[in-house]
Amino acid sequence: MTVVKRIVGNPLIRADDITGRNESLEVIGAFNPGVTEFNGGVLLLLRVAERVKPNDKTVGVPIASDGEIKISEFQKSDKDWDFSDSRVITQRGGKKLLTSLSRLAVARSLDGARFELTGGGIFPETEYEEYGIEDPRITKIENKYYITYSAVSSKGICAVLRVTDNFIDFESRGVILCPDNKDAAIFPEKIGGRYYILHRPSGSEFSPPEIWLAESPDLACWGNHRHLMGVRRGRWDGVRIGSSSVPIKTDKGWLVLYHGADINNRYCLGAFLLDAERPWIVTGRTDKPFLEPELPYETDGFFGNVVFACGCVRSGDTLKIYYGAADDKVCRADVGLNDIFDAMR
Amino acid sequence: MTVVKRIVGNPLIRADDITGRNESLEVIGAFNPGVTEFNGGVLLLLRVAERVKPNDKTVGVPIASDGEIKISEFQKSDKDWDFSDSRVITQRGGKKLLTSLSRLAVARSLDGARFELTGGGIFPETEYEEYGIEDPRITKIENKYYITYSAVSSKGICAVLRVTDNFIDFESRGVILCPDNKDAAIFPEKIGGRYYILHRPSGSEFSPPEIWLAESPDLACWGNHRHLMGVRRGRWDGVRIGSSSVPIKTDKGWLVLYHGADINNRYCLGAFLLDAERPWIVTGRTDKPFLEPELPYETDGFFGNVVFACGCVRSGDTLKIYYGAADDKVCRADVGLNDIFDAMR
Repeated sequence: MTVVKRIVGNPLIRADDITGRNESLEVIGAFNPGVTEFNGGVLLLLRVAERVKPNDKTVGVPIASDGEIKISEFQKSDKDWDFSDSRVITQRGGKKLLTSLSRLAVARSLDGARFELTGGGIFPETEYEEYGIEDPRITKIENKYYITYSAVSSKGICAVLRVTDNFIDFESRGVILCPDNKDAAIFPEKIGGRYYILHRPSGSEFSPPEIWLAESPDLACWGNHRHLMGVRRGRWDGVRIGSSSVPIKTDKGWLVLYHGADINNRYCLGAFLLDAERPWIVTGRTDKPFLEPELPYETDGFFGNVVFACGCVRSGDTLKIYYGAADDKVCRADVGLNDIFDAMR
Repeated sequence: MTVVKRIVGNPLIRADDITGRNESLEVIGAFNPGVTEFNGGVLLLLRVAERVKPNDKTVGVPIASDGEIKISEFQKSDKDWDFSDSRVITQRGGKKLLTSLSRLAVARSLDGARFELTGGGIFPETEYEEYGIEDPRITKIENKYYITYSAVSSKGICAVLRVTDNFIDFESRGVILCPDNKDAAIFPEKIGGRYYILHRPSGSEFSPPEIWLAESPDLACWGNHRHLMGVRRGRWDGVRIGSSSVPIKTDKGWLVLYHGADINNRYCLGAFLLDAERPWIVTGRTDKPFLEPELPYETDGFFGNVVFACGCVRSGDTLKIYYGAADDKVCRADVGLNDIFDAMR
């Protein structure tokens, strides 16, 4: 039986803790943080979602363009568009737009529980980021931090790589995985002379969204894509899965947290284990999720019944998992490594 | 006005020219050939599609597994499956299977019109190829031939790379682009020290299937993906597009044939031009298609109203385009380079 301890201060960060980039915008979510240890503390790169303040007659769609946010207004009476889902608007016959725009904000903490926003972060810049940037994973390799995130635009959902050593300047290495792809997480060291990445292509005619592995000589170009792990139809991870953490080196192999969604879009957290030298071999997988949306801050929010992690910090034999709850808050839950291993078949 | 000359011998190869791999299979298509010059003649690597011989009560689905073809039978009376499209069967709630299995066969000709099948080729081998392999492009770089094709399986549609110098043995470099991706075509030389590829990701929530460019240090790993060219809604290339040839070096830049499909799934051929040194810049595009399905062998067949090329041979200022007609025959049409340039805006 896995024992997860949610910490007492949850939620650690809420939408209300952050102000919009300008007067016409409001922050509706602070969630799904990438995590790393940095300068003696914990650093989160959290997703901040903003939307145009609502009114009765129109829906505003914020789009990033040349470093600014442009707002397109759509009349709610326009029969050509479907406004029934608060997260997106969809045009009859195809076009889809997001009603919120996400950026990545830096928050820091010395105790791992009380966080302060630094004001910096990564903002949408390129044509691949016009609808926002989401769900970062942070991998430390030697003295640099490699950040992968999902970039959303009219070109699709891509994985983008940025590199930093100070979390102030973020050098872009461009689109590393073409659309649609999410949940890219780079391994923290080379294996057999090659870099490896977990990723999650989606939108296939023949396959649900599942976890793949690829390799690289240089972190920017990726090949030898291999299907790693599939959904389990009818179960908690039966509709889509994706890696939720950067792989963690343990004496049993590479431990990876992953999220699974069921037919009701309920997101839970599980884990799997990869062979240390041959990371294309799955050696273990939790049968049941070890973290499920149960508390009110997880079941209720912008999109309820979701726990979604993008990373964790290891402290001895404990993982401190920072996760998004209900797509609008940052929370933390701690779990012992041995409890996760025990839960694997 | 572009002048295309279909040659008199069309169709050059038909399904009837090829026998099935065993008694329970029949060849229903010989089409979409990759093309190269080889040993003083023209070599085609054509897609050969086979299906289980039909009967009244069941539909057989051929699946490649461990070098053999296994046949799964589905009762036509089974309400859990939809048999209305002759190309696929679809299970209620998701699973999709192809009713035909494609492989790639080698055909050779000295005059470029009368072809002989050598009996060799590329057969589905891996787990990524269980539903077949399709639509190859052949790029000659120095003394080797790099073949990209679409591999279809329950994991999705991937781009696979194989290398040969004799068209007898084909060394695999694995999946170079993850699902869903089609129409990968490698440039025949490095530009600024990097290899380049055209490709066509599909299945995005936010974008129709369009043409992208990526770069590589080694032909196996690809990055810096850039969106290159989009559809033109409402027109002949309004629903999906993909490159149809390996880029051809001309004094005006890289010339590429491409296919476009409209809302009725009618496939036509056009062309575009890329800057010689900066292949991410589109410098020209034909307004209208220069080859459309018009003759009976193009309008009628396994899937009618389709002309679909995977390559051509250049002879002086003429391109000899080998193309699939109605998804079941190989044909040839010749066009002058200057006629294509004249048709570009």
